[in-house]
Amino acid sequence: MASLQDIAVAAGINGFSALMFLIIFAMLRLQPINDRVYFPKWYLKGIRANPVTAGKTVSKFVNLDPNMYLKFWKWMPAALNMPEPELIDHAGLDSAVYVRIYLLGLKIFVPITVLAFAVLVPVNWTNDALQNIQNLTYSSIDKLSISNVPSGSPRFWVHIGMAYIFSFWTWYALYEEYQIVADMRLHFIAGEGRRPDQYTVLVRNVPLDPDESVTEHIEHFFCVNHPDHYLTHQVVYNANTLAALVDNVRSLNNRLTYYQNKYERNPKRRPKTKTGFLGILGSTVDAIDHYKAEIEKFCKEEAAEREKVMSDPNSIMPAAFVSFKSRWGAAVCAQTTQSSNPTIWLTEWAPEPRDVYWDNLAIPYVKLAVRRLVISFSLFFLVFFFMVPISIVQSMANIEGIEKVVPFLKPLIREKSVKSIIQGFLPGIALKLFLIVLPTILMTMSKIEGLTSLSSLDRKSAAKFHLFILVNVFLGSIITGTAFQQLHKFLHQSATEIPKTVGVSIPMKATFFITYIMVDGWSGIAAEIVRLTPLVVFHLKNTFLVKTEKDRKEAMDAGSLDFATSEPRIQLYFLLGLVYSAVTPVLLPFIVIFFAFSYVVFRHQIINVYDQKYESGATFWPDVHRRIIIALIIAQLLLMGLLSTKKATYSTYLMMLLPFLTMWFHLFCKGRFNSAFTEFPLQDAMVKDTLEKATEPNFNLKAYLEEAYIHPVFKAVELDRPMAINDEENNPLVATTRNAVVVGTHPSHEDGPKQVPLEPEE
Amino acid sequence: MASLQDIAVAAGINGFSALMFLIIFAMLRLQPINDRVYFPKWYLKGIRANPVTAGKTVSKFVNLDPNMYLKFWKWMPAALNMPEPELIDHAGLDSAVYVRIYLLGLKIFVPITVLAFAVLVPVNWTNDALQNIQNLTYSSIDKLSISNVPSGSPRFWVHIGMAYIFSFWTWYALYEEYQIVADMRLHFIAGEGRRPDQYTVLVRNVPLDPDESVTEHIEHFFCVNHPDHYLTHQVVYNANTLAALVDNVRSLNNRLTYYQNKYERNPKRRPKTKTGFLGILGSTVDAIDHYKAEIEKFCKEEAAEREKVMSDPNSIMPAAFVSFKSRWGAAVCAQTTQSSNPTIWLTEWAPEPRDVYWDNLAIPYVKLAVRRLVISFSLFFLVFFFMVPISIVQSMANIEGIEKVVPFLKPLIREKSVKSIIQGFLPGIALKLFLIVLPTILMTMSKIEGLTSLSSLDRKSAAKFHLFILVNVFLGSIITGTAFQQLHKFLHQSATEIPKTVGVSIPMKATFFITYIMVDGWSGIAAEIVRLTPLVVFHLKNTFLVKTEKDRKEAMDAGSLDFATSEPRIQLYFLLGLVYSAVTPVLLPFIVIFFAFSYVVFRHQIINVYDQKYESGATFWPDVHRRIIIALIIAQLLLMGLLSTKKATYSTYLMMLLPFLTMWFHLFCKGRFNSAFTEFPLQDAMVKDTLEKATEPNFNLKAYLEEAYIHPVFKAVELDRPMAINDEENNPLVATTRNAVVVGTHPSHEDGPKQVPLEPEE
Repeated sequence: MASLQDIAVAAGINGFSALMFLIIFAMLRLQPINDRVYFPKWYLKGIRANPVTAGKTVSKFVNLDPNMYLKFWKWMPAALNMPEPELIDHAGLDSAVYVRIYLLGLKIFVPITVLAFAVLVPVNWTNDALQNIQNLTYSSIDKLSISNVPSGSPRFWVHIGMAYIFSFWTWYALYEEYQIVADMRLHFIAGEGRRPDQYTVLVRNVPLDPDESVTEHIEHFFCVNHPDHYLTHQVVYNANTLAALVDNVRSLNNRLTYYQNKYERNPKRRPKTKTGFLGILGSTVDAIDHYKAEIEKFCKEEAAEREKVMSDPNSIMPAAFVSFKSRWGAAVCAQTTQSSNPTIWLTEWAPEPRDVYWDNLAIPYVKLAVRRLVISFSLFFLVFFFMVPISIVQSMANIEGIEKVVPFLKPLIREKSVKSIIQGFLPGIALKLFLIVLPTILMTMSKIEGLTSLSSLDRKSAAKFHLFILVNVFLGSIITGTAFQQLHKFLHQSATEIPKTVGVSIPMKATFFITYIMVDGWSGIAAEIVRLTPLVVFHLKNTFLVKTEKDRKEAMDAGSLDFATSEPRIQLYFLLGLVYSAVTPVLLPFIVIFFAFSYVVFRHQIINVYDQKYESGATFWPDVHRRIIIALIIAQLLLMGLLSTKKATYSTYLMMLLPFLTMWFHLFCKGRFNSAFTEFPLQDAMVKDTLEKATEPNFNLKAYLEEAYIHPVFKAVELDRPMAINDEENNPLVATTRNAVVVGTHPSHEDGPKQVPLEPEE
Repeated sequence: MASLQDIAVAAGINGFSALMFLIIFAMLRLQPINDRVYFPKWYLKGIRANPVTAGKTVSKFVNLDPNMYLKFWKWMPAALNMPEPELIDHAGLDSAVYVRIYLLGLKIFVPITVLAFAVLVPVNWTNDALQNIQNLTYSSIDKLSISNVPSGSPRFWVHIGMAYIFSFWTWYALYEEYQIVADMRLHFIAGEGRRPDQYTVLVRNVPLDPDESVTEHIEHFFCVNHPDHYLTHQVVYNANTLAALVDNVRSLNNRLTYYQNKYERNPKRRPKTKTGFLGILGSTVDAIDHYKAEIEKFCKEEAAEREKVMSDPNSIMPAAFVSFKSRWGAAVCAQTTQSSNPTIWLTEWAPEPRDVYWDNLAIPYVKLAVRRLVISFSLFFLVFFFMVPISIVQSMANIEGIEKVVPFLKPLIREKSVKSIIQGFLPGIALKLFLIVLPTILMTMSKIEGLTSLSSLDRKSAAKFHLFILVNVFLGSIITGTAFQQLHKFLHQSATEIPKTVGVSIPMKATFFITYIMVDGWSGIAAEIVRLTPLVVFHLKNTFLVKTEKDRKEAMDAGSLDFATSEPRIQLYFLLGLVYSAVTPVLLPFIVIFFAFSYVVFRHQIINVYDQKYESGATFWPDVHRRIIIALIIAQLLLMGLLSTKKATYSTYLMMLLPFLTMWFHLFCKGRFNSAFTEFPLQDAMVKDTLEKATEPNFNLKAYLEEAYIHPVFKAVELDRPMAINDEENNPLVATTRNAVVVGTHPSHEDGPKQVPLEPEE
């Protein structure tokens, strides 16, 4: 058990490392050479141009203005200053709502922390249960926790009362937030300009007709069943092979550019390469000629494949994007059942064009059900048995195993210092590698499940990751043993025994989780803002691949909020906060600092860095809400279990009510708000339709929609963002409230419009 | 433990009592005087007229043809002969599908019984585990059960294999039946004539508007949001007080008729009554004059209330039946979200006019959620604590308690014989009374929950009753102690321990359940067909109240299938059959006889007796399916528990897969078929609309719908069945395949059309 001093030392170390990251970030971001790493969003929006193209030679790369270094912390207030409507307009609703999760954390935990310190800490401190036990080493942290209250003490009434107050407050905060987010979403949808997905419905499982082609069949079906509303449709081609070929050509082009750059810099020697595996094996050839020939070959193949896909009726999949004359017509089609056989003619809202996951559009109904079954079994095994293959790898990856596989390394390995390093690190490496590839595994599993949009893939992967964290990080840290051993134990314990077993260990693990919060939360978030990997990758690409402005734009990796991995991690902090709120309140300030710090950092990131791949309009909020509800129920059950071991018999009956009320609250919120995230009300559709008819009576909708849902490989230009969105972003509905600032070191700023990046230099 | 002989004796007794009921039934139904008790359906359809009105004097009341008595069993083949399409046409889809539940029972259990007797009985019989245990009395039944297989025997592989085969067969039968019922429903809906509910949507939670009345607000909203489809609407009046007054007048009329009849038969003495409580207390008055005056008084009150309801804007509730120009328009409105606030403008399919439960139409959203919470808590307490009030009543209702309350009965009670009767019966009476009123309590709870149609009330009550039977009849019989004690025990046992505890007791309870099946199943069903209560009530009413033909028609109580209580009872048999299929196969033939016998009896009843109050188109099938799935999962878990105590360690892992597969099968079926029971596909709506437009281009739909959804008390005539249904029934789509039969003793048959009652006399 760590004492308060130990915790303070750990806090100091982690606070210092976080501060170091922040200072490094503040230094790096001021260098013009890193401008594209730390402000890519403004480049992508076309507001900021390249600082390297103009100015003095040295100041092109290094910032020489000492004043700016003194104001290095200025980015924080700048990140907080942008008002929310402008933020939504600038970064999209998804990002704006995402940072609200941190805000919700603050809203829930700041009052709880204040109350817990005002009431629970004195109540716990003024006992002497721990002092009375002989031969027990305890720390000052434990003196502040519920462990210090003797069994059967009437003081537990205070803890029960606080549990109720904390629950009520959490419900209130959750309800209010759900309402705010639902309103934001409805307002966002109402304010949006014309977008293809507003008129379009994705139809899947089109039945095959012996007399008609797929496209004719679709047209006839919708002409008959939606006679006044059907406008046009776009069948889906199976272009997976073509997409692979296009990717291949792009990567060959990259290599060609690399060798051409190399040749330009050193014209005396033409670069060579080998034709075999990774350019290591095979015969040596002239690199530029080789890749030029290769590209030509694959371009021809690509053209042939393109021809084949377009002409072969077998490459048309039984799915289509059907567009309607009005939003009302599309809303009707998306929300109704079309056929009496509910496994054909399945309709749902079309995702945004850039949100479509093309590979999954043509999976038949029965196959989908089987895939879901297989994936749920796999998920179960992944969560509870993932240690099995890792232990096998670990047992094989020892000194003797390596010696067998690569005998020529034997002398090196036998060296004592090397041996100890290998023995120390190897077991950990297998686990680390697994944890690194875990999000990819989960995403692959979601893809196999057959989801049709990137946003839903992200949401489903997040749900899987949340389960993994819950079982393996939270429960795994509290109870020793692998997840499977836990499961085995739980199955052999009674329903009332499980919360007791876990609950009893809760106070003892407080210091561990405090350290975890500081390492993973504080330093992790601070590391996020430095963007080390994109920084290195950008400079490598910039050196070897970039020739034109367009290349440089492509080398820039803005990244995006990774909902699938980061949201479940936030949920762990909600869970820890709720579980420890009534048990060990000392943990709460660390949670609050995490939420506050993350809020600032991510607000900065979404303003200056991230470029979202899609805009789902915050459809993930019901998931966030549900997981906080799960955390709350877990917290209530564990407190119940803990109290029942403390000989507070009345407590079980009193606490039993809380999980049920929480469950009911969840159902109530679901009924109240959920449909705002899944359905599009006819009234709103009608309002937008009417408005549009009045303002643009002669708009050619058919032409507008014709090309919207074409597989990206068929488009001449890259499908980065559809026209309509750009239109809107260039003409924001909310006028910016910030003044234009001219910055000396960045000459490009002079041509910036009214929106400028957040800069500390003013 | 009962031996095979004991069981055979019990079977003999119960079989004999069932046979006696059948013979009594066969005798009674041949008497013309009972014709309206045993063939009310044909009277209600107008096909059969009164046999009492014509013929010889004696044969008006008693059947004197000896031939007919010899053929008394002929009703059975007659009941089975009517082909299903004709049955649907004659009795409605609800009834036709209801008897298919029994058919499904046969389909599942006949092959299982054959297989179990061919494989499991020999496997169990040829062991000697029971013989090897000293000091154990065992019966021949146990020799046939799994108890006779010694622990750790490899023969358990056979039981596990059989459990898999039984589960696969049950899935197959369930899947096929779901498909058949879904097809029947779709076909039924497609074949239906015009009905008001096809065009109508029930709108609830209409928001209040300060500037408009409710009816204006509704009209404007739908004119704007469904401009091409909205036709008309009918607001809902709060007519609960008025309905009570109308009921009161009707009951006073009954009494007046009674006294008038009495006076006519004995004109010398004018009947008297007392004005006070139940005609016992108060001053004596002339009965006919008194009731005439009373009726006049209440009629005036009724008229005033009627006036008030029609004119007072406060009696208009924020709900309405909105009708559309086409089925397509109604289908769209019923399936879509109307407003961005999902707690207002809630739309759902309107129930049939006679299916509407008027009292619940105006409950706001938040109140509904609170009511549901309260009811679920109440249901929990009712199921687990219902013994508490009963024990209190039992402890009070003893000899001393009665002496205190009614001291003048003291000498009588002190009599030894009376005393022993009271002591023997009293404790049971409280429980019996509770069980009799239980369905009413459950129905009241469902009404409080706020459901808007009688069919959904029936379904919800059935779900509650099913839970009660599961906990208190099934588990309560297996494990001793009250439900609450069981719950307490389960909460303190591990998840793996619970199936073991229950599973171990399963084989021991086989004889108990065999007796239960014979008493409740065999004799109970045979008693159903005699219709003792309606028989007595009809003859009482006929004697005292009937004056005109209309009176006689009203005195006839056809009754109806009581889904809320009878379906959960069938589910108990499914559960018993599935649980015992692999444990004690001897029980299976009793189940099979129950299903076969019930099938014949209920098929007879729905053809000749029952008159359904509503037609929901078999919307209850998903519930039936789900509960059989629940029974299957319980059976699998209990077998797993039982096997794990038999030292068959591999069994747990092998059996664990089954519940998960069953769960998945359920989800698959739900996705595949459920929407056929909840949604109305646009394609089908369009087909019917188009057909109708072609055949009746000038039909005045508005006039047709205007009066359809008016509260019954506002209608001049009784709302028994809407016009459209009668139309259809008189012109059946399926031509009858049966020949008209002229029956001597029933002269009225001569005017019968092509459809005639099922008679054994040919």
